[in-house]
Amino acid sequence: MDFEEKTLKRETIFEGHIFTVAVDDVELPNGLGQSKRELVFHNGAVATLAVTPEDKIILVKQYRKAIEGISYEIPAGKLEIGEEDSEKEAAARELEEETGYAGELTFLYEFYTAIGFCNEKIKLYLADQLTKVPNPLPQDDDEVLEILELSYDDCMAMVASGQIQDAKTIIALQYFGLHMENK
Amino acid sequence: MDFEEKTLKRETIFEGHIFTVAVDDVELPNGLGQSKRELVFHNGAVATLAVTPEDKIILVKQYRKAIEGISYEIPAGKLEIGEEDSEKEAAARELEEETGYAGELTFLYEFYTAIGFCNEKIKLYLADQLTKVPNPLPQDDDEVLEILELSYDDCMAMVASGQIQDAKTIIALQYFGLHMENK
Repeated sequence: MDFEEKTLKRETIFEGHIFTVAVDDVELPNGLGQSKRELVFHNGAVATLAVTPEDKIILVKQYRKAIEGISYEIPAGKLEIGEEDSEKEAAARELEEETGYAGELTFLYEFYTAIGFCNEKIKLYLADQLTKVPNPLPQDDDEVLEILELSYDDCMAMVASGQIQDAKTIIALQYFGLHMENK
Repeated sequence: MDFEEKTLKRETIFEGHIFTVAVDDVELPNGLGQSKRELVFHNGAVATLAVTPEDKIILVKQYRKAIEGISYEIPAGKLEIGEEDSEKEAAARELEEETGYAGELTFLYEFYTAIGFCNEKIKLYLADQLTKVPNPLPQDDDEVLEILELSYDDCMAMVASGQIQDAKTIIALQYFGLHMENK
């Protein structure tokens, strides 16, 4: 069985700062004919499960325009163009900018967030041995953030109550539950 | 501290079948001035962690145009407009269309997949007590799918090797690991 969809034509709809939108005409495999694919191309992002020496997980409270509401998430940030080769440095920088912490970073895994239409890939890191940076990098000037340090149980209660509804954050919390709780 | 970003103006860039794209001019809180937000609006989706009586997890192998490659994922599908009130039925329908199975569905949780720029929300269900449907609903005519039934350990090996890189699938597998393995 063949799976590949060949691109017959690509129409670029929008080229923004955060993502590009295109519509592809594709040839379906196995003689199934043609179809259209609406696509969002994104440069990727990094995210960090940051755990304090007291075994608290660092969350960032912020407003998300896409959902018109408050969200609680692990520290994360977009990759800039050309930054793909130094994702670990990008994760460390975002952690410092958003939380004022530096730590030892370990790559956990990477995943596509919305694979049905978007190529955004997040690289997830663990940061431990955290220390406060004396003069941390400043936050981005269009971000308003509040930092929380919560136990795993408190975080999972926020998942259960629906306060935490961010996929990358749920993945990171589950990772903690599977590999780090009471270890 | 105020978090809300007020919409000053919305420019709709693209209205597709799968998503709508807009650029908002926003007033930042706390006198921080103005900024722009590039946004993707999506009608939402359902996904199902389907577990066979033999404790195997059902994965769907398929081509994903956004990443130009093969992906292994739990069964899932977009919600149609107006279908938001019956997500459970949508999940059951997608499960039957993609896998030929019917089961008992239990809501687990919901999450935003790419909250930084997109409002796509996935409702995740558990399906157990699976039975093969004699004459299942046909697959969508622009989808080429192959169904796999794998143990949790085999699935996690595919996460470790990078074969499984889909966020919703990782969330479902970690849920299994936290709550269903050896229980």
